Parts: sequence; C-alpha cells; structure tokens
Amino acid sequence: MSPAKKINVKPADGKLGILLPGMGAVASTFIAGVLSSRKGLTRPFGSLTQMGTIRIGARSEERFPLINEYVPLAQLKDIEFGGWDIFPDNMFEVCTKAEVLETKHIEAIKEELSSIKPMPAVFSPKYIKNITGPNQKTGTLWEKAQALRADIQNFKKTKNCARLVTVWCGSTEAYCKPSNVHATIEAFEAGLKADSEEIAPSQIYAYASIMEGVPFCNGAPNLTLDIPAFLQLAKEKGVAISGRDFKTGQTLMKTILAPGLKSRMLGVAGWYSTNILGNRDGAVLDDPANFKTKEESKLGVLDTIFQPKVYPELYANLYHKVTINYYPPRGDAKEGWDNIDIFGWMGYPMQIKVNFLCRDSILAAPLVLDLALFSDLSQRAGFSGIQEWLSFYYKAPSVNEGNVVEHDIFIQSMKLKNTLRTMMGDAPVTHTDDAVEA
Amino acid sequence: MSPAKKINVKPADGKLGILLPGMGAVASTFIAGVLSSRKGLTRPFGSLTQMGTIRIGARSEERFPLINEYVPLAQLKDIEFGGWDIFPDNMFEVCTKAEVLETKHIEAIKEELSSIKPMPAVFSPKYIKNITGPNQKTGTLWEKAQALRADIQNFKKTKNCARLVTVWCGSTEAYCKPSNVHATIEAFEAGLKADSEEIAPSQIYAYASIMEGVPFCNGAPNLTLDIPAFLQLAKEKGVAISGRDFKTGQTLMKTILAPGLKSRMLGVAGWYSTNILGNRDGAVLDDPANFKTKEESKLGVLDTIFQPKVYPELYANLYHKVTINYYPPRGDAKEGWDNIDIFGWMGYPMQIKVNFLCRDSILAAPLVLDLALFSDLSQRAGFSGIQEWLSFYYKAPSVNEGNVVEHDIFIQSMKLKNTLRTMMGDAPVTHTDDAVEA
Amino acid sequence: MSPAKKINVKPADGKLGILLPGMGAVASTFIAGVLSSRKGLTRPFGSLTQMGTIRIGARSEERFPLINEYVPLAQLKDIEFGGWDIFPDNMFEVCTKAEVLETKHIEAIKEELSSIKPMPAVFSPKYIKNITGPNQKTGTLWEKAQALRADIQNFKKTKNCARLVTVWCGSTEAYCKPSNVHATIEAFEAGLKADSEEIAPSQIYAYASIMEGVPFCNGAPNLTLDIPAFLQLAKEKGVAISGRDFKTGQTLMKTILAPGLKSRMLGVAGWYSTNILGNRDGAVLDDPANFKTKEESKLGVLDTIFQPKVYPELYANLYHKVTINYYPPRGDAKEGWDNIDIFGWMGYPMQIKVNFLCRDSILAAPLVLDLALFSDLSQRAGFSGIQEWLSFYYKAPSVNEGNVVEHDIFIQSMKLKNTLRTMMGDAPVTHTDDAVEA
Amino acid sequence: MSPAKKINVKPADGKLGILLPGMGAVASTFIAGVLSSRKGLTRPFGSLTQMGTIRIGARSEERFPLINEYVPLAQLKDIEFGGWDIFPDNMFEVCTKAEVLETKHIEAIKEELSSIKPMPAVFSPKYIKNITGPNQKTGTLWEKAQALRADIQNFKKTKNCARLVTVWCGSTEAYCKPSNVHATIEAFEAGLKADSEEIAPSQIYAYASIMEGVPFCNGAPNLTLDIPAFLQLAKEKGVAISGRDFKTGQTLMKTILAPGLKSRMLGVAGWYSTNILGNRDGAVLDDPANFKTKEESKLGVLDTIFQPKVYPELYANLYHKVTINYYPPRGDAKEGWDNIDIFGWMGYPMQIKVNFLCRDSILAAPLVLDLALFSDLSQRAGFSGIQEWLSFYYKAPSVNEGNVVEHDIFIQSMKLKNTLRTMMGDAPVTHTDDAVEA
Repeated sequence: MSPAKKINVKPADGKLGILLPGMGAVASTFIAGVLSSRKGLTRPFGSLTQMGTIRIGARSEERFPLINEYVPLAQLKDIEFGGWDIFPDNMFEVCTKAEVLETKHIEAIKEELSSIKPMPAVFSPKYIKNITGPNQKTGTLWEKAQALRADIQNFKKTKNCARLVTVWCGSTEAYCKPSNVHATIEAFEAGLKADSEEIAPSQIYAYASIMEGVPFCNGAPNLTLDIPAFLQLAKEKGVAISGRDFKTGQTLMKTILAPGLKSRMLGVAGWYSTNILGNRDGAVLDDPANFKTKEESKLGVLDTIFQPKVYPELYANLYHKVTINYYPPRGDAKEGWDNIDIFGWMGYPMQIKVNFLCRDSILAAPLVLDLALFSDLSQRAGFSGIQEWLSFYYKAPSVNEGNVVEHDIFIQSMKLKNTLRTMMGDAPVTHTDDAVEA
Repeated sequence: MSPAKKINVKPADGKLGILLPGMGAVASTFIAGVLSSRKGLTRPFGSLTQMGTIRIGARSEERFPLINEYVPLAQLKDIEFGGWDIFPDNMFEVCTKAEVLETKHIEAIKEELSSIKPMPAVFSPKYIKNITGPNQKTGTLWEKAQALRADIQNFKKTKNCARLVTVWCGSTEAYCKPSNVHATIEAFEAGLKADSEEIAPSQIYAYASIMEGVPFCNGAPNLTLDIPAFLQLAKEKGVAISGRDFKTGQTLMKTILAPGLKSRMLGVAGWYSTNILGNRDGAVLDDPANFKTKEESKLGVLDTIFQPKVYPELYANLYHKVTINYYPPRGDAKEGWDNIDIFGWMGYPMQIKVNFLCRDSILAAPLVLDLALFSDLSQRAGFSGIQEWLSFYYKAPSVNEGNVVEHDIFIQSMKLKNTLRTMMGDAPVTHTDDAVEA
Repeated sequence: MSPAKKINVKPADGKLGILLPGMGAVASTFIAGVLSSRKGLTRPFGSLTQMGTIRIGARSEERFPLINEYVPLAQLKDIEFGGWDIFPDNMFEVCTKAEVLETKHIEAIKEELSSIKPMPAVFSPKYIKNITGPNQKTGTLWEKAQALRADIQNFKKTKNCARLVTVWCGSTEAYCKPSNVHATIEAFEAGLKADSEEIAPSQIYAYASIMEGVPFCNGAPNLTLDIPAFLQLAKEKGVAISGRDFKTGQTLMKTILAPGLKSRMLGVAGWYSTNILGNRDGAVLDDPANFKTKEESKLGVLDTIFQPKVYPELYANLYHKVTINYYPPRGDAKEGWDNIDIFGWMGYPMQIKVNFLCRDSILAAPLVLDLALFSDLSQRAGFSGIQEWLSFYYKAPSVNEGNVVEHDIFIQSMKLKNTLRTMMGDAPVTHTDDAVEA
Repeated sequence: MSPAKKINVKPADGKLGILLPGMGAVASTFIAGVLSSRKGLTRPFGSLTQMGTIRIGARSEERFPLINEYVPLAQLKDIEFGGWDIFPDNMFEVCTKAEVLETKHIEAIKEELSSIKPMPAVFSPKYIKNITGPNQKTGTLWEKAQALRADIQNFKKTKNCARLVTVWCGSTEAYCKPSNVHATIEAFEAGLKADSEEIAPSQIYAYASIMEGVPFCNGAPNLTLDIPAFLQLAKEKGVAISGRDFKTGQTLMKTILAPGLKSRMLGVAGWYSTNILGNRDGAVLDDPANFKTKEESKLGVLDTIFQPKVYPELYANLYHKVTINYYPPRGDAKEGWDNIDIFGWMGYPMQIKVNFLCRDSILAAPLVLDLALFSDLSQRAGFSGIQEWLSFYYKAPSVNEGNVVEHDIFIQSMKLKNTLRTMMGDAPVTHTDDAVEA
C-alpha cells in the first residue's frame, strides 16, 4: 500500500491553555494529575497521548515510537489551566472535598492547585435542578455569552497562551431537542438576545469558544454541539469540535465486550446494566430529566455495534436495559454490574456477568488531557468541524450528517491511529496476512 | 488504496469430508448442530462462515455480503463426517451421554447421528492418564500411522468425497517438548518405526493427514504440529495446517478485554483466572502433566497483547495466575471467574470481575466448522503451511518462525477478513477517517 | 429446663383440600411437585415438612425424628387441589406455558394435571393493570363473595375433604392502605354490598375462606389479612391465618446474611439490591403502583434485623435501595444482585456481592406446601388468628398488635421448631453450653 | 422457664495483659485499634464485647444492655500489650509495613505503637518454610519454654498486670498429627528436653502459658492445644483454653449461608471456594504443607452444618472444593469468590455466587479483643479447659471429647449469649412463640 501524502501540521510552539467549564471532581483530578506528573510524582496512566506508542511499518520492523514523539503535541509543561464553576472553590479545595485523591497526592501540589480558581459560571436551574451554587454570571444570555468571550480573551492574554482548547467537564443537563433556535447561527444569536429557554448553558460556552476560534470538546451527553448552527459555525471559523460524553466505566466495558461477542457471531438476547454512584454526578442524574439525556447516550451504543439489521437473528431481539442509581455510600467510586444473556451454537444460552469497580474521575481525567491535546493538534493540522477520529473517547460520538456512528472501541482506536499515521505520511495498518499480500 | 490482485481459488465442487480425531462432546455437538441446521431445526450461531458478513468498500456503500456468498466455501449439505475415538459409541450415544444438548434436539436427528461411528483410535496412556477406552488400534506406531492413512483413503472413497479436512477434537495430552525425533520428517518416520515414546498420538494423526494431502487443524494445546518436521512436510505436500487450542470461554474473554484495556492505556497489576468444569476434559486436566500443557497455552495470551517491553510501566509487573478445577456438579457447563486489578490516572487502582457461565462444547463446535471450511478454502487457494490468518480461532496460534504471535481478537478478526478481501481482489479495510483520506 | 405441657392436637384424618387463588406458575409448580413426588418421580426438596428433621433432647442424644413423623401432619397422598384463576387453562396447560418445569416432568403427570381446572376468579383491573383474563365471576362484590363461599363448600363436598386450607398464589395488587371499610367485619360486609373500591379482590377470598372456617395464608405482599376486620373475624371463627409475601430469592438471602453480619457487629453503610425477572410477576411489577406494594414488603426487612435504634453507630445510616426490573429474556429464572458495603474494626470498609441465579416458582412451591400443612396443623391444635410462628416463610410477617416483627431467618426457624416441640410437650432447645448448665 | 443459678464471677480489677505470639498484621492492627479507640479516634466495630448488646427477658420488655455492662469484662483502658515475633520491628513499624491501616490512623498513635516491641520468638523452619527472621530464642526446646515462662512472669511484673491472656496471632504451621509426645504432660516435657521434632513452636507457647495459669486462645489452624497433654494440663491448672483458627472472610460467610440454606431444606450439589490474598499469611500458605493445615480447617465446616447423615438426599453428594492463591497485588485485602450449586423443589438447580472483598486483619482484630476479654471472664468465672461457648470465633472449634463441633454461626452466637445469661442468673432465650407458651 502506498503511503498517504504528509499533511502540513504547524508546530506546537508556546503555551496551550485548557479551559474547563465545570471544575468539579473530573476537572480537578485532571489538573492534579498533570501537575503531579510534571513534578515526577505520579504517572498519567490512562492517557494515550502520554503513555501510548504507535506501530509504524510492518510488524517485523518493530518500530513503536511514542505517540507524543511521533506527532507534534503540546507538552505537559506548556499547559495552563482555567475554567468556570458555580462554586468558587479553588482546585485544592475541590480536590479535598471530592475525596477522589489521597491526601498525600493533593498536599504535594497544594500551592499550584490553590492558585487555580474558577471564573463565574453560566448556569440555569431549568437544565440542572438538583444542585446550585453562588459563583454565577448575571445578565441576559447574550451578555453572558459576551462575558465568556471576554473571559477567554483575558485568560489567553494573562497567561500568555499561544493557543486554547475548551473541554466541557460540567454536569449532564436536562434532555432537550434541537429546535428552530438551533437551526442557524443567526437564529441562535437572536435566541441569546431573547433569552430563549431552549438554549442550554453548555451551548453558550460552545458558542463563545467557537467564536473565539477555540476547539471545543463535549464531555457530557448534552446536545450542546450537535445542532446545525454550530456545525456551520465551526466550519466557517475553522474550529475543531468533538463530542459527546466521555466514554468511561460501564459503557467503556460495553464497547469492548460487544465487538468481541459480535466477532464470534454469538447472539445476545438481553443486556442488563445497572450502576451505582454517589458523587455530584449521581445526584444530578437522580432527576429523571437529566437521566433521560444520559440514558439516550448509553442506550445507543449496542445498536450500532451489533447492526441488528445486518444480523437480525443474532441481535434484533436484544432487550437492553440501563439503570443508574444514586447511592451515596460509594462517593466517586462508582460501580457497574452487567448481566449479558448470550446464545451460541444451536441457540444454547450462556451468561456473562461483569462487575466493574471503577472511579469516575480517574477514568475521565486522562480523556480530558488527550482530547485537549488531540484537538489542538487537529486545529494545527487545519482540520475543522467534527473530529470523527476522536470517537474513541466518546459514549455517543458526534458525526457529520450522513456518516455512520462508530462505537466499536477497536475500530475507533484503529481509526485514531491510522489518522495519525496518515497525517504523518505513513501507511495505515491493515493487519493483512503477509503471506497473502506477497 | 488500490485493490490487491485476485487469487485464483478453485471452486468447492463435490463433497467435503471432515475427519475428527476425538469424537466426544465437542465433535458430537458439532455434528449434531450441522445435521440439525441442514434440517432447518436450529441455527449455527457462533459460526462466522454461516452467520457472518463482510463489509466491502467504503462504509457508506453499505455492501455487507454474507461471507459464505463472498468466498467459495463448501456448503453444509455437502459435508460428510468421520473420525476416531477410543470409545466405540456412535454419535447418538455420545450426544446422550455428554448431556450437552437437550433430548429434543438429539431425538430429531437420531438416525443420522446413530449412523456415525468412530474408527479405532491411536492412543497412549503415557499422554493421557485419567481416561482409557477399548476402541484402539494395535501394532507399532508405524503400523498405526499406516492404518490411519488407510482409514483416510477408505473414508474418502466410501463417502465419495472430493476433499477432506482433519480437525483434532481430542483431549489435551501430557506436556512434551520437541526433540530430535521431531526435527525432520526422516527422523520422525524413524521414530515411528522405533516406537519412540516422544511421539504423541496426536502427531501420528497429523502425520497421516498431511501425508494424504489433508489439511489439519489442532483444537487442543498439544504441541502436535509445531515441530520442524511437520512445517517442512506441510510446505512440501502443499497442505494448509493451523493450531493451537480452540479459543473458547475464559481465554476468549481475556483476548477481548485485554486489548480494550490496552487501547486506553490502563495498567494491569494482576489478573487472576479460575475455572470450574466437570466434563471429560476437566477429568483429564486434573492430571498435573496435562494441566501444564493447558496452562502454557493459557498464560501466554496476555504477554503478547500487553507488550510489557513496549509498556513496562503498565504491564511489566502484571501478576498472572490461572487455575482450573475439576468440579463434577457442573458437567459440560464450565464457568470462569476473573479478577482483574487495573490502575489508571496517577496510579489509582480499580477492579473488574468477570463471571462467564459458558458451555464448553457449544462454544467449540462452531470453531470446528469454521476451521474446516476455511482450511478447505486455503487449500483450494493454494495456501500451504501454517495459516496465520486463522489465529482468530486459537488460544495459542501457531506462526511461522520469526513471526509475532497475535492474540488480540480484534486484530485477528481484521486479519482474517482482510485476508478474505485480498483473496477476492478487494481492498483491505483500514477504518481511516474519510475526511483525512480525501 | 422442664418440658411444656403437651397440647391436644386432633389427628390428620381424612383428605385435606388445598385451595389456591391464582393458579399460575407458582401454583402449578406446587401441584406438579406434589403429584410427581407421590409417584416417586421427584423429591419435594425445599420443603421443611417433607425433608426436615427436628432435634429432640440434648444434642448428644442424637434424636432427630422427621418433622412429619413428629407432629401429626396431613400426608401428600391425602391432598386434593383446587383454586381460581382469570385464565381457564388447566394445570397441564399452565405448566407448559410457564416454562418452569422440563417437559419430561410435566408429561409424566399429564393426566392428573389436566384434570385440575381453575374456577372463575374474582378480579379487578384497579388492583392489577398489566394483565387480564376471561375466566371471571360477575356481579357485585357481595355476590362474588357468596360465589366464592359456594365454591369452597362445593369443593369440600365433591372432593370429599375433611379439611381445607387456602393459600394465596396470585399476583401483587396495587398498593392500598386500610380504611374505614376494613375496620370491622360489619363495615367490610357493607362495603362488599356497596361495591367499595377499597376492597381488594384478595380480601374477598380471605373473607370467604375465614367465613367458611378455612385457614388462609397470604403469599403476596398485598395487605389482604392485615386489617382489624379480619383479625377479629379469624379469632371469632377460630381460624388460623398468616402472611405476608413468600420469602424467596433476594429477600431470603438478605434475611440470612443480615443476621450473620449483625452477629459479628459489622456495620453496614449501604445495601443495594437489584432484581431481574421476566415472568408474569415481573410484568405486573412493572406497574409502579404494584411495585410500591412489593417495595414496602422488601425494604422493611433490614430495619428489624439490624435494630438501628439499639445500634445507631452500626446501622442508623444504612442506605437501602431495592429495584426490580422486568427483563423478559430471563422468564421465571429471576436473578438478584446485591452489593453490600460493610465496615469493621476502626471503620474500615469492605464489600460483599451476592449474585443469586434462582427460580421464582421453584423457591415458592415448597412454601405453599409447608404453609398449607402447618396451617392445617395449627387449626387442629386449636390455634387461631395470626400464626406468628410461621414468620419463617414470609417477607413481611404479620404479627398481632404490639408484637415485634421478626425477620431473622434463624430466629424464625428456631421459633417454628420450638413451637413444634412445645406443642408435643418437649423442651425447647436453647443451645446453652452443657458445661455451664451443669 | 426458671432462671439458672447465678455464677460467682470475680471482678475485673487491675490491669489485663494481652500477650500475642506473632506480632504481624493482625496483632498490630488489633493493638492500633484499641489504642485509637481509647483516644476516641476510631470505634472498635466488629467487636461483640465493645459494640454488642444482649436481650434480657421477653422481647417486649425491651431490655438490651451492652454486653460489657452486663458481664464484668476488663475495660480497654486497663489493657497492656506484649508479645513475641521473629522480626524485632516495633508496632509502629509493623503497622507501616503491613499497609492495612491508613497513615493518618497510625500517625495519631505513633508514640504508643513505637513503645511496643516484640520479645524474641520461638521459631522452627520445619514448621514454617517460606519466611524467617532474626529475633529468635536459642537453646533446646526446654530452654526456650523456660525462657517464655520467664518472659510471661517479667511482663506481668513490669507492667503491673493483675491477669494475663495469650492469643496466638502467628502463622499457620505445617500440618502435623498428634503423636506419643503429645499424649501426656510428662511425655511432652520429656519431648521438650529431647528437642523432639514433633513439638511445634505454637505448642511451646501454649505450654508456657498454661503452666503460668494464663488462658490461651489459638487463632491459627495449628493443632497446638488439641492434644491430650494440654487438655489434662488446662483442667489441672484451672486454665481456660480455646481454638482453632479465627473465623474470618470466606469461612465466616460460609457458616452464615450454609445454615440459611439448610433451614430451608435446599440441597447443595457443590460448593467451590477460591481465595486470593497477598500478605505474609498468603506467602506462608503457598507452601503445600501449611496449606494442608488450613484446608483441613476450612473443609470441615460444611459437614457439621449440613449433617449429611441426617440429610443424605440433600447433602451427602456435596462436592466441596477450597483453594487459596497467593496473589501479591492484593496485599492484606484478601478476596473470596464462592460458587454454590443448590437445588430445590423437584431437584431443580440454582446458583449462588458470593464475592467478598474483605480485609484479613480488619476482620481478625476484633476477634483477638473479644477472645482475650471473654477468656479472662471465663477464668474469673472459674471455667477451665476448652471453652466451647467461644466456638463463635473459630473456623474449627475445639471441643471436649465426645462433644459435637458446632459451626452454625447462629447457634454459636446463641450459645455464647445464653452462656452469658446463665452466668448472670438470667433465663436463656428460646424464641418460643408467646401464644404457644401461654
């Protein structure tokens, strides 16, 4: 196979600012991990940009460079952190309250953490009922949008950043459907001025970010970016965007297991998933409106992997049930239990149970880092609009109209790596048997 | 990417005989499923050749032909069954005793099952201690080898088969290492004549099969094929061979989960796997010598997936423990329990538990079918020697010297399908982002 | 300790009729098991009256008579079966549709099963929404009550029974609270005549049964018996009654585990219980009103075992969550998963997970038998009103006003056996150390 | 029932010294917990003597005094700690290395912990192969025994203790059978003088302790006390002794679940138990000779609970398998997984899986405390020889010849409490139905 033509990627010179709407457990764990890693105290496990290698050429060549030496990524030492939250606590206080990290890990970077404080947030009780906080912007939606743009500009100047990226780490908002106000950028701006109830807070962040030419990554299941207005705006402004909903915990396991079962043509009669978690995210999801947003994100996963239209005998009657339960004794250490009813040869039934004792923020933090770094790379490579090659990180990947959503984590991973290879002018890997190719 | 040149594959005309050394639970379940499927009573779920599709061209083209319509495979109606066993029971009797299938499924094909009876087997108590049976060949090893060759010739003639394939469905033999007698085909034949203790029964079947130009697939962890003598002989005789050990149950799950964890750069501190099973296979494995053969096959899996040399921080200290326990209450319905200790961001630990309530023979039967049909395809395509593209089906895939063993089931699956695509002159699939390729 | 005075229990002469309101999976499995056992084809495992022994005297005496040889119980051969259901299917048809029992077990008693047909039922869509059926009585509630009394009299005469017992095996009704109509028997009868919406169908069965002098056992969580009117009536008529909700599956496990944890003074921070089941019971419980009845029954269990007022440090903050999910792939084979967060020495947390793959009707059937036989025994012993000594069989045991509900299965079991011992004039067992007593 | 005659128990005046042969993870966790509790920093959860209440009189009387206010027990403030170990580390160092407790809990009592140092131990590589240490006594066994007696006397004097108790917290020794040297105290002393290989180190501790009139509790599965010589000596010296093997983790769960299954007459076809643990105990048990001692202790549990001779249909064919695996990633946080194959009505099979994520030392520490306090109570009450009423705490309770071993934790618990009641002149509890008693 002939290699692709190398793309001209601008170098990662200067500092990269990472802006985080929602500075709770996930954001603070992300920041703490980067700071701690810079000091050589801990390692950023779980991050593909920091730990991963990429195979170049035939397997026998044994060329496995580190990804961050292969493509020009921003380095950890060059990152500045900022963001917004409805609580004014600094990152040291947030880490302490969140009880995700051990005291010794937080104490070692206390000074740096304490210096990072959230800017006042854009918030609406209509979209999140179960929590509220004092650190909010006031005014019309239009004024709030302008205030966010000013925040972004000030941050860039003050911190002397060459480039910025925004990664949504906030809560799940109440379920909403795209309407007229989301159809064009003109309608959207009119909506901001009219204080439209159909505009979710997360969309105001996305608007401000794209307008400022800053890539936006959506870590929650919120609709946010997936509206015609923003798809058009991102293309126009040449901004890389991606979403939706960090793929962690139970859904991560699901997109690992399902492709495996399918590869062997094992049928699935039912898949029952239950979750218990006790952090702020759990409290928010205890409201049915917010759970619906999450449920939509979680339920879609199996259909696109199993292709029930292609394999009706195996997957058309799959009964898929997902529940999430707020369970305070567990805090951030959420837990999933799956029961999978499969069937094989002659229809005989078998069962798989998976119990995943995970940690929400520990699994999400490295995704924040990777998405920020890869989105910055996209931007420098001149990619704009939806970055489908980052589907690997999302529960419900956004795609351009007409494209198929891919949930299979192995195809997602291959797509990501082959995108990097193609970007650098190397041949994509196909795992074709050498003997046959010869 | 330009398509490969189409290979000239001979058509699948006439009948295909499938010969099974070891006609116990797996073989009888395989035969019953094919017979039942022919009558339209049950479906051959779990079989890629019967249920699977293959995507051709770009995803948007939506071309997903069935594999058995895309490549020229033998059809179920054209299969004849034969084999050898130390017990003289016909397949109806074996099915009844094995308690794998329900009475109604067996009764519906009683006549066909009853007509299939094992030929006298080549057996050695040195290699399998915990069971024995009366239906054995006598004489020197050389005489036994000649008797097997005669069996093969007679079967082909009597059943009017155009082609044959052998698939080992027998027990795990005691662990043995390659020695001088395995170095060349001359040494091996001398060993047969000298009744060498270093020649395992399974190797005599493999010898007879290859000498007769019949592809051989090795469903057990036995060394069997992986000796210089046979690699050379298979090439000389133009015979397709493959092995080792049907990938079912716990190891199947392992090669699904491990690539998923690795794709996300999650470290693994420990992986504890325990199995309980109560069938004849369990009784054989209760002997430490036989368990060692199995253990070697099972333990190797994680190393090649995790690449501890490439990722020392993540996987070099993985503590991997596998146990198998004979547990009669369970019969053929074996069960695996895995505890996986992983770590992520900043080194924080998490746990995954997998409980797989599976059925040994139900998972293995479709592999027998696929391996038989694909090996026959290989043969007609002119492929000879080790078929690495069939690694997908094996716990410990045999590879040509110098090649890397691949355990990742997703890479194995892609390799298999891209081999089929290449064989038919289509382009391999790379999952590269369209946006980037353009 | 001196033995109690022996009670005069009438002998179990003649036939015992067992009447079952609700002849679905549980009732038909119960009947099939008794019929099958009579023929010596299967054994009534799970039944204390059939399998259990009772220790008499000091342990060293080794006197362990079978319970049904120690107290005068009706014998299996002397039982006649009858009942009511909204579906007219006979018991052979019900067994076949329920898919609880294997074909071979049903076929062996086909004739007997086919001869047992439900009488038309009293039903109200207000109390059970998700199912309905054609085999119903018509008229006012009062007329229905009279029709049930006539059914009972006819059954007794036709089948030549000496005694009868009623065991409710019907569905869970919508949650209802006791009101004025339940205060006295006069108010209740007036309510029947006025077609009061506050009278649940199950209460009409209970009324008819008690009026006919027939003991009534309540296998569902329905309020049914726990109203002043019936407590008074049962005493007046000298009828033994008991309830509520057969203790099977997850709650059974809970009342086994909780006393164990408490015996060791291990604290419990949270107990999360989820259930999946796919039978008719699951469909009924998919309606929130009916689930509420069940939930009340399930949630009360832990409180009375753990005594949070006596042990506030250990159990006052226990977060208890119970969910039930309708999951059709599973049929009658329901499954529970519990996560229990406990803490020990110095407050350190530990976890217990219990996965119970059970069968609803298989666990309930022997309780129907035991309750019928023991209620008949109570009646012959002259016990009337609530039989607290049968708490052993119920999720939410009914007790006389002012008495403490006991959920600890070990105390329940001891209470049951000591009641039998006392009844026969033997000393209760106290497990006091001999060395100390001497 | 008439109350028993109150026993004359001497008051708990003065200090109680607790001597611990084996000062590793369990002993140090026990000491840390008592020290921490004294300061009001943590609570001694899991300890019946500290947390438990006891019901006196009829349930309706609602009299639930705390056990340590009901019977005269030594108070935490009056305890002195001592012991022996082959490593000279003080208790602060041991706590730090053991990684059982969090840093904050250890730091808060650093001074007290640091002041407690083990005396040189009696050790034999014949009995424990996989570990060794420098802090050992020298000389003949007889000299070592005398040295231990001197240690005990010095400790009592130096610490100004009124009474002492010894609780074995050391490792599992290699399996050994009683022989002639264990037959009489004379033979045993001769054996000490002759340096007999058949005398285990733990027996020398027991000998020294009993000779000094100090109660001895055996927390390991070692034979230690269960020899005629010591049974006789304990009676002669008026010393309370008890054993064997702290009941924690998987066996604790087993003796909770098994009585529950039996109470319902559910049959058991198989019980498979596997354990993973990575502490020093795990390393010792990795030697087959030491595992055999443990296995004997663990396997006996089910037989006496299930009474297969009384219930042959239900339990005679139970296949019981126990494995323990050394698994370093887990440290002290051991984990058990049980699969239980049960059967009910008509023989239908069901399954229970229990996954217990526990902590070895956290579960064992409160048992050390309770056994020390209750043994001291026994001694003051004039009880001598084997204390069967403490079976509650042991995996393999020692009993006097001819007595039945009781494993059912609920019977054990009742026996313990009724012993306390009897001791104080109150009536034992029988849970007999009031209605019946009247």
